Amino acid sequence: MREINQIGVLTGGGDCPGLNSVIRAVAKTAIIEYGLDVIGFVDGFKGLVENNYKQLDLRNVSGISHLGGTILGTTNRDNPFNYLTESQGKIQSTDQSDRAINNMKNLGLDGLIVIGGDGSLNISNQFSHKGVRIVGVPKTIDNDLAATDVTFGFNTAVNTASDALDKLHTTAESHHRVMVLEVMGRYAGWIALHAGLSGSADVILIPEIPYNIEAIIAKITQRYRQGKKFSIIVVAEGAAPADGEMVVQNLVPTSHDPIRLGGIGQKVAEDIAKFLIDIEIRVTVLGHLQRGGSPIPYDRILGTRYGVAAVEALMEGKYATMVSLRGNDIITVPLEEAIKELRRVNPEGNEVRVARSIGISFGDK
Amino acid sequence: MREINQIGVLTGGGDCPGLNSVIRAVAKTAIIEYGLDVIGFVDGFKGLVENNYKQLDLRNVSGISHLGGTILGTTNRDNPFNYLTESQGKIQSTDQSDRAINNMKNLGLDGLIVIGGDGSLNISNQFSHKGVRIVGVPKTIDNDLAATDVTFGFNTAVNTASDALDKLHTTAESHHRVMVLEVMGRYAGWIALHAGLSGSADVILIPEIPYNIEAIIAKITQRYRQGKKFSIIVVAEGAAPADGEMVVQNLVPTSHDPIRLGGIGQKVAEDIAKFLIDIEIRVTVLGHLQRGGSPIPYDRILGTRYGVAAVEALMEGKYATMVSLRGNDIITVPLEEAIKELRRVNPEGNEVRVARSIGISFGDK
Amino acid sequence: MREINQIGVLTGGGDCPGLNSVIRAVAKTAIIEYGLDVIGFVDGFKGLVENNYKQLDLRNVSGISHLGGTILGTTNRDNPFNYLTESQGKIQSTDQSDRAINNMKNLGLDGLIVIGGDGSLNISNQFSHKGVRIVGVPKTIDNDLAATDVTFGFNTAVNTASDALDKLHTTAESHHRVMVLEVMGRYAGWIALHAGLSGSADVILIPEIPYNIEAIIAKITQRYRQGKKFSIIVVAEGAAPADGEMVVQNLVPTSHDPIRLGGIGQKVAEDIAKFLIDIEIRVTVLGHLQRGGSPIPYDRILGTRYGVAAVEALMEGKYATMVSLRGNDIITVPLEEAIKELRRVNPEGNEVRVARSIGISFGDK
Amino acid sequence: MREINQIGVLTGGGDCPGLNSVIRAVAKTAIIEYGLDVIGFVDGFKGLVENNYKQLDLRNVSGISHLGGTILGTTNRDNPFNYLTESQGKIQSTDQSDRAINNMKNLGLDGLIVIGGDGSLNISNQFSHKGVRIVGVPKTIDNDLAATDVTFGFNTAVNTASDALDKLHTTAESHHRVMVLEVMGRYAGWIALHAGLSGSADVILIPEIPYNIEAIIAKITQRYRQGKKFSIIVVAEGAAPADGEMVVQNLVPTSHDPIRLGGIGQKVAEDIAKFLIDIEIRVTVLGHLQRGGSPIPYDRILGTRYGVAAVEALMEGKYATMVSLRGNDIITVPLEEAIKELRRVNPEGNEVRVARSIGISFGDK
Repeated sequence: MREINQIGVLTGGGDCPGLNSVIRAVAKTAIIEYGLDVIGFVDGFKGLVENNYKQLDLRNVSGISHLGGTILGTTNRDNPFNYLTESQGKIQSTDQSDRAINNMKNLGLDGLIVIGGDGSLNISNQFSHKGVRIVGVPKTIDNDLAATDVTFGFNTAVNTASDALDKLHTTAESHHRVMVLEVMGRYAGWIALHAGLSGSADVILIPEIPYNIEAIIAKITQRYRQGKKFSIIVVAEGAAPADGEMVVQNLVPTSHDPIRLGGIGQKVAEDIAKFLIDIEIRVTVLGHLQRGGSPIPYDRILGTRYGVAAVEALMEGKYATMVSLRGNDIITVPLEEAIKELRRVNPEGNEVRVARSIGISFGDK
Repeated sequence: MREINQIGVLTGGGDCPGLNSVIRAVAKTAIIEYGLDVIGFVDGFKGLVENNYKQLDLRNVSGISHLGGTILGTTNRDNPFNYLTESQGKIQSTDQSDRAINNMKNLGLDGLIVIGGDGSLNISNQFSHKGVRIVGVPKTIDNDLAATDVTFGFNTAVNTASDALDKLHTTAESHHRVMVLEVMGRYAGWIALHAGLSGSADVILIPEIPYNIEAIIAKITQRYRQGKKFSIIVVAEGAAPADGEMVVQNLVPTSHDPIRLGGIGQKVAEDIAKFLIDIEIRVTVLGHLQRGGSPIPYDRILGTRYGVAAVEALMEGKYATMVSLRGNDIITVPLEEAIKELRRVNPEGNEVRVARSIGISFGDK
Repeated sequence: MREINQIGVLTGGGDCPGLNSVIRAVAKTAIIEYGLDVIGFVDGFKGLVENNYKQLDLRNVSGISHLGGTILGTTNRDNPFNYLTESQGKIQSTDQSDRAINNMKNLGLDGLIVIGGDGSLNISNQFSHKGVRIVGVPKTIDNDLAATDVTFGFNTAVNTASDALDKLHTTAESHHRVMVLEVMGRYAGWIALHAGLSGSADVILIPEIPYNIEAIIAKITQRYRQGKKFSIIVVAEGAAPADGEMVVQNLVPTSHDPIRLGGIGQKVAEDIAKFLIDIEIRVTVLGHLQRGGSPIPYDRILGTRYGVAAVEALMEGKYATMVSLRGNDIITVPLEEAIKELRRVNPEGNEVRVARSIGISFGDK
Repeated sequence: MREINQIGVLTGGGDCPGLNSVIRAVAKTAIIEYGLDVIGFVDGFKGLVENNYKQLDLRNVSGISHLGGTILGTTNRDNPFNYLTESQGKIQSTDQSDRAINNMKNLGLDGLIVIGGDGSLNISNQFSHKGVRIVGVPKTIDNDLAATDVTFGFNTAVNTASDALDKLHTTAESHHRVMVLEVMGRYAGWIALHAGLSGSADVILIPEIPYNIEAIIAKITQRYRQGKKFSIIVVAEGAAPADGEMVVQNLVPTSHDPIRLGGIGQKVAEDIAKFLIDIEIRVTVLGHLQRGGSPIPYDRILGTRYGVAAVEALMEGKYATMVSLRGNDIITVPLEEAIKELRRVNPEGNEVRVARSIGISFGDK
């Protein structure tokens, strides 16, 4: 086995609180524990293709753990295996993976750590097949990777969404309103579920449980009769009505769209308004606020643990793996397995059952 | 002068952080300092018309100062002089002001404190003309009342908007994006101006300074050339382009609309997108998050000072007035005068000049 | 098996963020899912002995999940098996457990849920031996119960401590100071360890790893030579020097002392000052700030899950147990087992290793 | 009048949230508006004497406004007119002001902006007398400068203290305790007064109003009899009993002491404990948490306005002045006048009267 003297790290995909905690832990561990040199590629895989990088040392990764964003920059468009370039006014897609591999060779890199979500881990897997020693760190704000219990960034997003619910609550109660909050979660409703549990929502709508507008109306009406003239509804952006025949889901606007048009939150509000004409309804779309800001301690610690573990995995020759949280332990799982399936909310699972037990409706009955 | 033994208080109009601080200060001062009885009308002027009220005592106003919303409830639709009722399926508007006055007489009320904005203060003024001893407390999230330096709630809204900018900043920088944040302010741009100054915005668009999209493009481009590949734009909901002929302003969606359609924030983003095709743009609309949540200390203290001053004004016979902050002092101004004009941002004033001095563009040149 | 129609709940021991989330979940689940009556005893076991209680219904547990403290009150002194009463000027200790059991019988209680730490769970176990159907919910701010992965309240305390470190950091760096922060943790260093990992501490001192002042001096000096003229030290209140012969540990002041005298944080600062005479050192003792305030979402959700699970355990006849988090699951463990041992930081465990990997010193080498 | 081409800026004295907002505004205004070169001296007046500085440009002052601390460093010990140096093991004090002035000349500096409190402004005044063109920016966390309505940093400190009171409140109420919070304010009680008003304190003790322990006991007892079994006391570090003959005040420990011994907060707690033997009392000393962390928007904006105004004052030839907030305006006042007296709380002023009106005791009757 070739000795490891120098490694690279990059951040791919959408923004996520905790990226800097991972970068700092990677660099510090590599330098302090193993005496390695560390290179950070700028703007994700684009930097890998364009050979755009900077040296990381103890000084430039110091004091960054609590900062949002990533000091390395990121894009969520560039894929070396399907790289878009403009030539003579035309946009072309070419495979630039060999160019990326050559860059790594010329730099003398002995391993690469990729911090990214679904897409970035897929690319990492392809690089693995071409012989690159690679370890992935799971990053999705949506917490929807099956191969790990929790991804970093998720709990900070829940925090932001729960704070928003706390704010909406006081207004809802004072004004006797229905407040709809649309949060992230295109395929999995984890943010909506956790924020709703934390922020005392009355209705939670998630992609995993198709809703009926009548059930939502019934819940609001029941509360009204009990003297609670307000209701709080959290909607994951991927939620859809039971009779939606997936059409609605396909049309659901997402946080990746350049400019949002009316999303599912607005649709739910409009549909309620058709039934309950004398109650005021307001919609708030949290959007990018969920991806930014200082990570909460949970995510700083998880990011730090992931970063240390990723370097250790490289040093122990565990290539083509992803670091993962299982219970209180950090383990590694094969990349191949990590990207196979989404972790979605189990409609019969403990958290949904807990929510139902305290009277939260999922709009399904 | 008839002795004052019992007073009433109500909260009218939209939600605003600090309402409970005022209510608590009114009740505590009235009870502790003057030995009065205090009644709180439920749901603003509606409670006054419907004779729906509750006794306030030291117990039920205790521990509420830091809570958002209002323990009395509020509506922003009910006007006793133009009261909407449904009768045989038809909606009628009638003058119920005498009924309200009768209710006060029957309850033995010797004075009324109204915590509200433009609309509620106008109603208060009308009641004054009919002989009701009334003192107003200025409440607008937008800080646009000319008769006072600052309204309570405003600084909490600025806090929420500034936090949002801090969050968007990290993502903007990591992803090289243009981030547009739409905040409240239909007629006055105070929230946008203060949040932009606090949250390091690059462009601030306010109703008082019509913008040219070219000037915004120029600012973004200039930054890009300096190596700053991201920009932060704060837009007040009432901002409008210079060539908009007021049409746009009339169409601007507001925080009072039941369900928001695309607002000025989205229009700005779309217009930028036409010129700068290869930069990613994202829009966030803060909406009701600005009205809710726990008031910051500044607003709790200001609300408390207003509440105490309102009771004192009643006891000193200063009827038909509004309490007001001037410098560090609380004074009273005639209601008549208080409702006459809006306090708008002065395009030549200190704060705009300060913003320009540190390189912030208002999109006008 | 006797049917369960009515249950009681009480909160014992020190304050802890999330208590109200548990109470709300207990009451809501009991009422909504099982149609039970629910009684809350006032001021912990004292209310049980004195028969002081209130009926809990959907109304009085509504809107409390995000509030710190406990709506039921608590004391950390009263033990029914060793109950202190004053009689003719003398303080007596008597066994009042039968009186408590009689109260429960007279009220028609079929089960009791005790939310408490070490002490309260011990008392619960004793009541179990006398035939009371009891289920415990683990509550320690220190996270030191071996029978559960995490106790609620812990992560909120870490948040508060990490926020404090963020604040101290900027001052430390600007003033080139050594900042010492003393946090809770008499027997286990979890808060110090997690806050230190999250808040970028340079040295973490915990009860599980005795420290040498020389090693701390060495770390500060090494940083100084690298141009980092400041250091951040987190000290658990139960930390002790290696040569302390346990004397110091016995003298360590705790958060339960009525009035604090100089604690270990101050001792560490004084000892550093003997060696490094020209560096400024400041000590901050977080104290009770760690126990108060609104629980973060993590603790609200965990508290809610515990509350639901406790009612389910009672309904399923799992008496003399405690609910517990294992990985992502809520399970029950025998009370007998739950109180046997503390969960202390493993000096060879993953989190300590992670901290060392990124250069954090534990003052031991 | 000599043209101004290059200016310097330094931060002196203790840490204060908002310093970076001022530095950024100074540099941006000087560069963007006036095309000047800007130098920042490192570690306050020490850098001036030692000729230790760095060039400030648009890049290195970008993105710092929301950060606590100061990017320039600071000390609160070094006075050029009384400069301590070590020579042959002895500490000597010499006048190094001419050396400082020479450094400025050699650098080609045409003006200096000093951001500092009492001490730094005094030094600035002395430099003015020796012909240095100087403008001061008022900075005290305590808000005790008579020549300005508000100093930046103060409102952030109030925020931190008010948050602490919110946290202590829930525990106090749940445990029926007396909670004592000691905050900064050696000569003036502004932080205690504002935090107490915001955080619903029951007793506020400030240097301007000597207290009697009996009056405090009476307040606690009165509350207890009303069923409120807890009390919250805020104590400024400079508070003293009426019979203290200034002895106590002289002994009061301060935030500048390297290591704190028992302060006035502890004394108050001990004295209460002598009278009320069966109530639990806890003391928390906020200490340096008040000086650190991200400035709230109010302080970022005020700091920015001060920074812009300071450059303008230099450019307009208003030397030997300090910028100052009066109402909503920024003006300049002569340095000579600015340092003459402290702004202390007026025991008969509006804010004290407001506090008394809502039942807050100052321990004096």
